[in-house]
Amino acid sequence: MTRISEIGERGLIEDFRTFLRTGADVGPGDDAAVIDGDLVVTSDMVSFDRHMPAGMTFEQFGWYSAAVSFSDLAAMGAKPIGFLASLGLPGDLDAQMAYDIMSGIDQCAEFCDTFVVGGDTKPGPGIVAGTALGRMEGRKPMLRSGAKAGDLLAVTGPLGAPAAALLAMDHGLEAPDAMSCLCLPVPKVEEGIALASSGRVTACMDLSDSLGTALNTLCEASHVSIEVYPDFVPLGPDVERVAELTGTPTDDLVFGCGGEYELLFTVGREGLDALYGTDVEFTVIGKVAEGDRPYKVRPGRTEEVGYGTY
Amino acid sequence: MTRISEIGERGLIEDFRTFLRTGADVGPGDDAAVIDGDLVVTSDMVSFDRHMPAGMTFEQFGWYSAAVSFSDLAAMGAKPIGFLASLGLPGDLDAQMAYDIMSGIDQCAEFCDTFVVGGDTKPGPGIVAGTALGRMEGRKPMLRSGAKAGDLLAVTGPLGAPAAALLAMDHGLEAPDAMSCLCLPVPKVEEGIALASSGRVTACMDLSDSLGTALNTLCEASHVSIEVYPDFVPLGPDVERVAELTGTPTDDLVFGCGGEYELLFTVGREGLDALYGTDVEFTVIGKVAEGDRPYKVRPGRTEEVGYGTY
Repeated sequence: MTRISEIGERGLIEDFRTFLRTGADVGPGDDAAVIDGDLVVTSDMVSFDRHMPAGMTFEQFGWYSAAVSFSDLAAMGAKPIGFLASLGLPGDLDAQMAYDIMSGIDQCAEFCDTFVVGGDTKPGPGIVAGTALGRMEGRKPMLRSGAKAGDLLAVTGPLGAPAAALLAMDHGLEAPDAMSCLCLPVPKVEEGIALASSGRVTACMDLSDSLGTALNTLCEASHVSIEVYPDFVPLGPDVERVAELTGTPTDDLVFGCGGEYELLFTVGREGLDALYGTDVEFTVIGKVAEGDRPYKVRPGRTEEVGYGTY
Repeated sequence: MTRISEIGERGLIEDFRTFLRTGADVGPGDDAAVIDGDLVVTSDMVSFDRHMPAGMTFEQFGWYSAAVSFSDLAAMGAKPIGFLASLGLPGDLDAQMAYDIMSGIDQCAEFCDTFVVGGDTKPGPGIVAGTALGRMEGRKPMLRSGAKAGDLLAVTGPLGAPAAALLAMDHGLEAPDAMSCLCLPVPKVEEGIALASSGRVTACMDLSDSLGTALNTLCEASHVSIEVYPDFVPLGPDVERVAELTGTPTDDLVFGCGGEYELLFTVGREGLDALYGTDVEFTVIGKVAEGDRPYKVRPGRTEEVGYGTY
């Protein structure tokens, strides 16, 4: 017998794909699936155990549980139209904590201009299984598979803060701004819609599994190499300070840790001006080349980018 | 502090509704929500603990986890267009059991003429959180709130087998046919579509929370009374035998236990002929009257119907 823990979550999902029938217009393999031409759907499961670091409130946990799925919609360029939340909570938990979780979910849904349309509650160890629904409204969904050699690589905001927050906690350091990035991630829904509307983005995904994993995934899906310039990557609050105080390479915080909800995308050079004409803030951090894997490029030094962890 | 266990699952959902913003066209309060005019969505969470009786295989558990949500779509008259499954499974579980669960989900989706379009896997105690998506395709969704005094009450098939299976297990009796009803419930998707297409059904819901609970819910939602004739209710396999061998009133098996997936519906007398003209098999088991609660009516004896349990 092979235990699930030996295969891992990614392995299990890959194994499922070997026998599941498919019928979606897009997916599996992207941030979300597109069905019926225009409907975008995605599910995520988060748990107290794994996604609720010390210092995170139940309301923040609720927000977080919804934000991870809305971020997947954002990566496709979909407009949210609803959220379903199934809660598996311990019977001896204070009911107020359940209200706080659901209130956090509702606030995140409101931020994304939509609302809770269904769900379930059952006894459980502290799990929220969320499903976000969205519509493309005629836009073409942004996939992971469209990056082409010569494209530029960009990110919608600063990175590293969630990792800095976790590391600061481990070392007993204060890092309130990083903590806020970790606990209240902002799904980049408007940015995703604007990027998809531009028609110029060739590939896009969110960074929830870390920049390192995202770069590897983009390379695999698009059959390209990516050269990323770490010195161009904008850093989130507390990142440099926590890196320095703990003697940790900044790259570890920027590339190695998930919990980031900025969008990573590629765009042809001829499309860049169109993107600068939108309201979306972004920073070019690298370029796409021929090949099959991502590299970090610094003056006089090139190294492979590994997968991150979360 | 008030613990979740003191409030109960139904109480918790009611409490959520006091503060959640709403925006669905239909719901909350029905088997599923309707959003964006035509899209029907519903989530359910099932667990090894609660929904996997001894003798149920992992494949059957997977089927069951999908069937409960497809049944909610059926109750609205929606055609399924996709299913998302988030699995929270123990790391030390044999991976083959995970494949079996997902294969059972896939088979149920295939039975409902659709497929798995997304999901997630995380460590957990043995939970499947499913979301089923459907479309009304121009039909009017069947709600719980439309029953009117004078309507007839009907059910699409025999009841009591799931309860008989559980009771037989408790008493060490064999009841293979009842067990099969318990472990492989058939979501009445085609029946639901045909009933909604007829335009004659005034209210409909599934019986997953038991006939007793469904009758009370219908009365509350439609502001009516219902008189049900227990002697007219068709009985599933093993029900009479298990009731007799265990000295249990048949009514307990028929009214008191969930896990049933037939549809309960009301129809005006003038609409009955139209329904007999469809392929849907059904049995009239009572009638709707003025009032506010359900009654069991037998010759010379009328008694209130209580909520069931599952």
